[in-house]
Amino acid sequence: MKLTSVEEAVEKLLKAIRLEPRVEEVEVVNSLGRVLAEDVVASQDIPPYNCACFEGYAVRSRDTKGATKSDPVKLRVLGKVLPDTKELPVVREGEAVLLVTGAPMPPGADAIVKVEEVKLEGDHVIVFREVRELENVALRGEDVKAGELILRTGHMIRPIDVGLLMGLGYSKIKVYAKAKFAILSVGKELYLKSLEKRWPPPNNYAYVIKGLIEELGGSADVLGILPDDVEIVKENILKVIDEYDVVVTMGSCSIGVNDAVPDAVSELGASTIVHGLALNPGKPAGFAVFKGKPIIMLPGHIVSAVAAFYVLCLPLLAHMTERPIDKVLPHVYAKLATDEETLGAHRFLRVMVEEVNGELMARPMHGGANVISTLLKSNYFTVLPPNTVVKKGDKLKFTALSPSSMIPC
Amino acid sequence: MKLTSVEEAVEKLLKAIRLEPRVEEVEVVNSLGRVLAEDVVASQDIPPYNCACFEGYAVRSRDTKGATKSDPVKLRVLGKVLPDTKELPVVREGEAVLLVTGAPMPPGADAIVKVEEVKLEGDHVIVFREVRELENVALRGEDVKAGELILRTGHMIRPIDVGLLMGLGYSKIKVYAKAKFAILSVGKELYLKSLEKRWPPPNNYAYVIKGLIEELGGSADVLGILPDDVEIVKENILKVIDEYDVVVTMGSCSIGVNDAVPDAVSELGASTIVHGLALNPGKPAGFAVFKGKPIIMLPGHIVSAVAAFYVLCLPLLAHMTERPIDKVLPHVYAKLATDEETLGAHRFLRVMVEEVNGELMARPMHGGANVISTLLKSNYFTVLPPNTVVKKGDKLKFTALSPSSMIPC
Repeated sequence: MKLTSVEEAVEKLLKAIRLEPRVEEVEVVNSLGRVLAEDVVASQDIPPYNCACFEGYAVRSRDTKGATKSDPVKLRVLGKVLPDTKELPVVREGEAVLLVTGAPMPPGADAIVKVEEVKLEGDHVIVFREVRELENVALRGEDVKAGELILRTGHMIRPIDVGLLMGLGYSKIKVYAKAKFAILSVGKELYLKSLEKRWPPPNNYAYVIKGLIEELGGSADVLGILPDDVEIVKENILKVIDEYDVVVTMGSCSIGVNDAVPDAVSELGASTIVHGLALNPGKPAGFAVFKGKPIIMLPGHIVSAVAAFYVLCLPLLAHMTERPIDKVLPHVYAKLATDEETLGAHRFLRVMVEEVNGELMARPMHGGANVISTLLKSNYFTVLPPNTVVKKGDKLKFTALSPSSMIPC
Repeated sequence: MKLTSVEEAVEKLLKAIRLEPRVEEVEVVNSLGRVLAEDVVASQDIPPYNCACFEGYAVRSRDTKGATKSDPVKLRVLGKVLPDTKELPVVREGEAVLLVTGAPMPPGADAIVKVEEVKLEGDHVIVFREVRELENVALRGEDVKAGELILRTGHMIRPIDVGLLMGLGYSKIKVYAKAKFAILSVGKELYLKSLEKRWPPPNNYAYVIKGLIEELGGSADVLGILPDDVEIVKENILKVIDEYDVVVTMGSCSIGVNDAVPDAVSELGASTIVHGLALNPGKPAGFAVFKGKPIIMLPGHIVSAVAAFYVLCLPLLAHMTERPIDKVLPHVYAKLATDEETLGAHRFLRVMVEEVNGELMARPMHGGANVISTLLKSNYFTVLPPNTVVKKGDKLKFTALSPSSMIPC
């Protein structure tokens, strides 16, 4: 097995596939968490006209000149303006108009004095202090200007964006379609099956990968466990390759006597670009390209599979939503709690990042390729480059394993 | 309006409600992102027996004593063991057995030599080096021990947990039911409605709150915009109070001439516990308790509404899943980019946390209670206590606005 470096593998992967991001339109109200496939330009000013920040009286600020508690100013109230009032009264010397929050400023007035600061006397309002010009007035476009680029392609839609898009009058929006992953588990030795007396075995590791794909913005179907049989693996890849964007196999991809996946892939005529990653754990991983689509071969050991997932599948999820790889998952900086080193390969270092005395410490979880508890006790990871020495106390950048994984358990 | 401090308001809220977390059972495969309502104890050891970490030959390590490249050891291969092999052969002096990954160690053998390190000659295997005792052997229970507490009540289920739970044989698991929020918007002046010529207006701010509730683990229904009419508001609260855990009103909760919510609530006989928060923005917010359930009054201005949401609704979402408030959303530490201060009230400070030269900087977004762009440009927040001065360069703890909001836009 010839090992390929992590950087080279990712470069080759993205170069070899013919997989174009797909765009679809969704209702804005259902767009939360989706990735924008268009730039959004404000269609109008926010606010759309000068308006009242608070409920209060629109006045001419110069009319309040010299007003004090003991020597207030008395203004005649002309009426009331709501946001949808059509005919605005003109405010002249000695006059005021009541505005509810968001109501447009009537001509003549240049400031708002809040309701709670005044006293009413019949149809007059008493103002006890000087009001500054534009006090409590929101200026047209001061929040968002018409024509302003407010959200970019590749941005993940948050609750506030839904509110803004609806407010600007959008009912539908273009987003990237979720990349569709098929997960085929292969091999008898997998899936902690020996823990289970029952049949079928739970195929549980496939659900770890499915969960990660879904949390990272894709969709995934778990399609069962296949035996280590080259013909059956071939058949199943053929069955799913047209319907899905990415085929992920789990297990049976090493060079063991029973490992059916590499043979199945090459017998199909897929070009195996990489088989063997210089990644620890994750070495048996690789990928082939068939009909322009990637077949990602993940090892059967869960930590190896997860490590190879971040190296090979994260770039595909980023590609299918036209985002930079480092914009898919959040990062933190944290101080390493132990000395760590790597030899000739990249190393998938999983850590528990926790607050210790007001700063973030990252405690590496050591263990073999199949020690699931190291992942249970981790919330972030980094992939250390080869021949690296990092020391206790060094501040490193770590990536969240997934959005649900960030809170220490 | 008598202002209540943020701490006092939260304390009163949690004390006044009679709202018990509900528990439901879900399929483990559908449990991602849900909050565990039971402790999970490992039902068995992982691995369940001593087994091979890699495909290789199970040997007696002492048989390889002195083996070198030029002077290898030759062992007779007895056969092959799979994870489900029932009858294990006994390995005696000079013998070896082929094991696939995860297969149980046969009696007599105490180490595995990997397939790629040996040569086969007929029914013999040639070993070129000494093998250590227990080399490449995973010991029973070394990963997870039977009886070990592996996941606690209040833990949010991650992809790796789904895999572990399935592997341990769980098909269903107890989680907290999602808290059900009803959102009633009230008032004419709301929702950037003036931006829209059409009817009905988009009720867009309600969808911001709905999105936040859903990202924080609750469920929410947006139930339209009601006019500023005390009778209609009363009617609608009565209509939803039994079906939902929490009623959230948006808008019309100040002390303005048109503000129907406080009157409606008190006419219903609900006890208004707090009306007026010492929070900037967010002052008009408050809550009442009716039939033991909270009616949270959020202001109509979007930034005020969001600020009051984090103060009043986040504790409810935490309560309904029995989690500490600070375990619902991730936090970071970042250096403040500007000097900030507060006066007599708490201040909802929204910031954009971004990496600048390898460290996280938090840039405060200044603006009024309705400046939506300050939320658009933010990903984290903190609630500063009253009478506080913080300086540029101070390292503060910030909370993510929501899981989807963490990546800088």
